[in-house]
Amino acid sequence: MNILTLLGSSRKDGNSDYLVKQALDRVDHTSMHLHDYQMNPIIDERHTEEGFTAVEDDYERVLKEFLNNDIIVFATPLYWFGMSGQMKIFFDRWSQYMRDPRFDFKESVKQKKAYVIITGNSPDPRISALPLVQQFKAIFDYIGMEFSDYIIGQANKPGEIQNDSFAMAKADLWNRQWK
Amino acid sequence: MNILTLLGSSRKDGNSDYLVKQALDRVDHTSMHLHDYQMNPIIDERHTEEGFTAVEDDYERVLKEFLNNDIIVFATPLYWFGMSGQMKIFFDRWSQYMRDPRFDFKESVKQKKAYVIITGNSPDPRISALPLVQQFKAIFDYIGMEFSDYIIGQANKPGEIQNDSFAMAKADLWNRQWK
Amino acid sequence: MNILTLLGSSRKDGNSDYLVKQALDRVDHTSMHLHDYQMNPIIDERHTEEGFTAVEDDYERVLKEFLNNDIIVFATPLYWFGMSGQMKIFFDRWSQYMRDPRFDFKESVKQKKAYVIITGNSPDPRISALPLVQQFKAIFDYIGMEFSDYIIGQANKPGEIQNDSFAMAKADLWNRQWK
Amino acid sequence: MNILTLLGSSRKDGNSDYLVKQALDRVDHTSMHLHDYQMNPIIDERHTEEGFTAVEDDYERVLKEFLNNDIIVFATPLYWFGMSGQMKIFFDRWSQYMRDPRFDFKESVKQKKAYVIITGNSPDPRISALPLVQQFKAIFDYIGMEFSDYIIGQANKPGEIQNDSFAMAKADLWNRQWK
Repeated sequence: MNILTLLGSSRKDGNSDYLVKQALDRVDHTSMHLHDYQMNPIIDERHTEEGFTAVEDDYERVLKEFLNNDIIVFATPLYWFGMSGQMKIFFDRWSQYMRDPRFDFKESVKQKKAYVIITGNSPDPRISALPLVQQFKAIFDYIGMEFSDYIIGQANKPGEIQNDSFAMAKADLWNRQWK
Repeated sequence: MNILTLLGSSRKDGNSDYLVKQALDRVDHTSMHLHDYQMNPIIDERHTEEGFTAVEDDYERVLKEFLNNDIIVFATPLYWFGMSGQMKIFFDRWSQYMRDPRFDFKESVKQKKAYVIITGNSPDPRISALPLVQQFKAIFDYIGMEFSDYIIGQANKPGEIQNDSFAMAKADLWNRQWK
Repeated sequence: MNILTLLGSSRKDGNSDYLVKQALDRVDHTSMHLHDYQMNPIIDERHTEEGFTAVEDDYERVLKEFLNNDIIVFATPLYWFGMSGQMKIFFDRWSQYMRDPRFDFKESVKQKKAYVIITGNSPDPRISALPLVQQFKAIFDYIGMEFSDYIIGQANKPGEIQNDSFAMAKADLWNRQWK
Repeated sequence: MNILTLLGSSRKDGNSDYLVKQALDRVDHTSMHLHDYQMNPIIDERHTEEGFTAVEDDYERVLKEFLNNDIIVFATPLYWFGMSGQMKIFFDRWSQYMRDPRFDFKESVKQKKAYVIITGNSPDPRISALPLVQQFKAIFDYIGMEFSDYIIGQANKPGEIQNDSFAMAKADLWNRQWK
């Protein structure tokens, strides 16, 4: 099983990254910070005659890694009660590439398992992140990907997540299962 | 009362735009397609010593319009069960500008009323858009803006929204109140 | 198409009843106030060897009407952010009767269409009733019943619902479709 | 700190009870099975002139224990994607007793901390129980009670919850904090 972590934060070494490191400690995996890649928002051309225009950015590099891995760990801070804009752009562009004959998108995603890590601070993310968990669920259901599990961690400043013993315990649980 | 419509779709003249036009028919207002403005994803520097770096893009033009209006109509198709990435970036950047002394962000938003228009197709957006409605509610609560009302319309191809007699009726109701 | 309205309020002629009357005006239908029937909470005996014990109350009269109709309008005030206890008991007992060979429960429900009317007051039920809408959706999905539409009305004292022009308009829309 | 567990299941020794036992192991507390008490659904007389009529059942015994404790652990299986009818009746009747001058309801609840345990089986309760978690949150917010934490456990037949290592770990965490 190949594991890819897609990190959606707009800074590095934050709390969602920390939980990812905990979960993947001494586990072989590929890690991508979405912020390191130039990804443009989608231009919706589903209903134009010529279909989608080719886009010149880094998206396909990220997409290829996504398609090449079996387990995907999506990690995002709770930004304004949703996933980060960077991560949202990643999903929005699917609308283009699931129609692109160069990729076997629809068949490939059905084999994948999704894990989600969300960190937030106040108001209590264990409640305020629930619509986001439901959104991830709807996304994965729509394309037939398994939503294996999720962690909601509570932290503000970098490093604080270590005080959330419950989130840490769950990351350990994932780690044991992958090691 | 000044009205601004923020259109989040990645194409023009789609179904969410149509509902906006219906609601604002013969009503004075300003209209901005987020897609026409270059807006970069946020770089989170809340916890770096120097604070946020100035960003060279069109964001401040959009923000100024937002701050100068009393009623904001947020219109977005349901993209992957959330608002469009373009619109999410608009909210994410708030984290920078609510700390920027050049803008009276926090006081200004408390006077505003928010209206939300969401259009989707399948699965039934009257259910699948509910986490997004909850996200908008959480956003507006967090900054103390009034969430006045929302419309969830069902349509796929451009123009189809006219068959959703209920969404159209609600847009008319808003229109009567603003005219 | 036979229509049954199941009224979950613990008083008569309240606001949810009013919306039901509006929606069913001059439409043939059967109407049951759950409060008029003695219905005991379920005793879960799914995992006892002998299975469920027969219960002496009015439940089967309500269930038979439910099974005999094609369209079911569930109407409940928002009590503590959920359906009324009376209506919850109605659903909970399904767990017994869907296993009862005297009834063709599972096949019968798949033909039915569900409409839901919820009324509440403060905080704004158009937001605070959304988890209840999601619960109804989950219930109907689970048994394969179609969730056709829902109305969320805002009112407090008896009669106030007439001021919610939007809820009234939607009830009229349903009425036109059924007449 | 006095702890009361309110068990909402309609059978004893099920999986939600098991998690409660784990969390309260060697911790002083009072335990009530709602099913052991005769509690009638509410009759809504908020808007009748004479107000609420006295009700002859066991409700006040349960209510007094509720009011006399500082920490309340609400445990319920996920019945039809909500709390059990028995537990819903417990909350619905609050509408009567928060107006009853014999009880200091409103002041008393503000001092309390709520913990919630939900167990379900399929579809995955970690997703399908989220509207119920949101309902509990809304209830506690409305009366000003702190929603300290929740556990969602996955199990079907009695005893199976022991295989949910994550739910068990969280119950242990609560236990350590209370011991």
